[in-house]
Amino acid sequence: MLTFDDILAAQTRLHGIAHRTPVLTSQQFNERAGCEVFFKAENLQRAGAFKFRGAYNCLAAMDEAERQRGILAFSSGNHAQAVALAAKLFNVPAAIVMPNDAPAIKVAGTRGYGAEVIFYDRYHVNREEVGRQVSEEKGYAIVPPFDDYRVMAGQGTAALELLEDIPELDALLVCVSGGGLIAGCATAAKHLRPAIRVFGVEPETGNDTLLSLRKGERVDIGVPQTIADGLQVNAPGKLTFPIVQRLVEDILLVSDEEMIATMRFMLERMKVLVEPSGAVGAAALFHHKFDFAGERVGVILSGGNVDLAKLGEWLSA
Amino acid sequence: MLTFDDILAAQTRLHGIAHRTPVLTSQQFNERAGCEVFFKAENLQRAGAFKFRGAYNCLAAMDEAERQRGILAFSSGNHAQAVALAAKLFNVPAAIVMPNDAPAIKVAGTRGYGAEVIFYDRYHVNREEVGRQVSEEKGYAIVPPFDDYRVMAGQGTAALELLEDIPELDALLVCVSGGGLIAGCATAAKHLRPAIRVFGVEPETGNDTLLSLRKGERVDIGVPQTIADGLQVNAPGKLTFPIVQRLVEDILLVSDEEMIATMRFMLERMKVLVEPSGAVGAAALFHHKFDFAGERVGVILSGGNVDLAKLGEWLSA
Repeated sequence: MLTFDDILAAQTRLHGIAHRTPVLTSQQFNERAGCEVFFKAENLQRAGAFKFRGAYNCLAAMDEAERQRGILAFSSGNHAQAVALAAKLFNVPAAIVMPNDAPAIKVAGTRGYGAEVIFYDRYHVNREEVGRQVSEEKGYAIVPPFDDYRVMAGQGTAALELLEDIPELDALLVCVSGGGLIAGCATAAKHLRPAIRVFGVEPETGNDTLLSLRKGERVDIGVPQTIADGLQVNAPGKLTFPIVQRLVEDILLVSDEEMIATMRFMLERMKVLVEPSGAVGAAALFHHKFDFAGERVGVILSGGNVDLAKLGEWLSA
Repeated sequence: MLTFDDILAAQTRLHGIAHRTPVLTSQQFNERAGCEVFFKAENLQRAGAFKFRGAYNCLAAMDEAERQRGILAFSSGNHAQAVALAAKLFNVPAAIVMPNDAPAIKVAGTRGYGAEVIFYDRYHVNREEVGRQVSEEKGYAIVPPFDDYRVMAGQGTAALELLEDIPELDALLVCVSGGGLIAGCATAAKHLRPAIRVFGVEPETGNDTLLSLRKGERVDIGVPQTIADGLQVNAPGKLTFPIVQRLVEDILLVSDEEMIATMRFMLERMKVLVEPSGAVGAAALFHHKFDFAGERVGVILSGGNVDLAKLGEWLSA
């Protein structure tokens, strides 16, 4: 179970450790979107994404002995750096299992926080198996990327802070991968403001949560092709999905091109760098995927970790 | 005269109209700089730069009849858009005198705020003359870019807010062009915290204020060559210079390459877009232009208006 009290407890643990990220507004974005938008800038969070909230809360909620043995995660993305940073702050060893073709910058980033990187061949070995093996050998505790109530509670603090700053939101848009962020945020938002409507946003090709909601059970779509590398999961989580079913209004879909156009606008006009996964919520508004006319809409800008060479390609395309 | 009360009055006028921009921090930047840095993110200000503070305060301080006749500015940069936006908010006509080779995006931005753009040939005509002529014809009031106490007072609110948020700063770094921002910020900072040391930062090639301070009088160096297009003035202002002489510790210099390296770091790690002129203060820390070891240092990130095509060039160079 995930409760509002879990999120409040996470907020206490994160106080003074996670950034209280600012809420950004842009008159020009509002004019384009036709509604009043409040951006929770988690791209300005430590390690560049909301993931730090869940990772740190998970470590903080462990008992001392478990944490001291060490921490393990498998991820080549924002979760990896978030766990590595959290482990560094607790001064405990961390190992991150990554595919051997992971971008050099992400490997360097993870190592920069002092974590050991363990490579595996993603075309021949199963990631979870590698992880379990390492976990057993080293006795390290696994921090799951989303399917864990401690992680979800941490992520939910993003919406908690947003609603503390801007209480009267009509709607909240949250990107959906495994569902940890939206499960936490919807739990916080619906508790504080029962009338709020929470929407998930997925890439067009990565619509596993949309399909799962329509079918009433978790659907596996295989790894989707999209530039939103943070949203390339094949199915919603076991623990997150029932929460999404209960609290989320609907799922909106955006294309890669729509993400890029939105990233460009946000960089050019709002001066913030958002990664494709982080831009899907804004893209849904920017491209009018739902009628929010005149409403006050919150959006979680989930992260900003972009390879600058790739950014150059996208912007010049 | 510029007094602290002028800055307080400006703060009251700007309340709820200018963004109260966030103060950003980065552990990684601190490690690199060897001190604790607090960035006042004026690149996230309305119209993308601190300039809006001074422009709006100037209009707000005019008497109603003067303002209603209309507003004039000459600028191809951030001041142009700031004045255009301020005039729009007061619903008064505005004309901006720009060189006929001004970047299309800046012309479009200024027109986007509803201002009339008046072109002149910068190689054959004097800008001030064109401005005066238009001012006389139309009866419009000129909003100077820096040499005006109402403008300086508005700019000073950036430091006022920063010190309200982070009172115990040891030093403050502010970019210097005509000196409006640093005159306002130094006045605010020295009043609130007399022990603070205020440093100006200029491009290596655009060191007119450094030379002027050394000589004890305003020196004209001609228009400097630098990518920091916001800092290409040839001499400090008449009204700003005595304030700089009285309150500023010293001037630090940074090269174009150092600005680019800093912009890259801030975009990649801190996820914010800063223009070259806006990055000089951070660049002085990033490249250790002075020993601030262990100190708490405030930096005004003055603006973020960058042409994305140019950004691509700089990042790929």
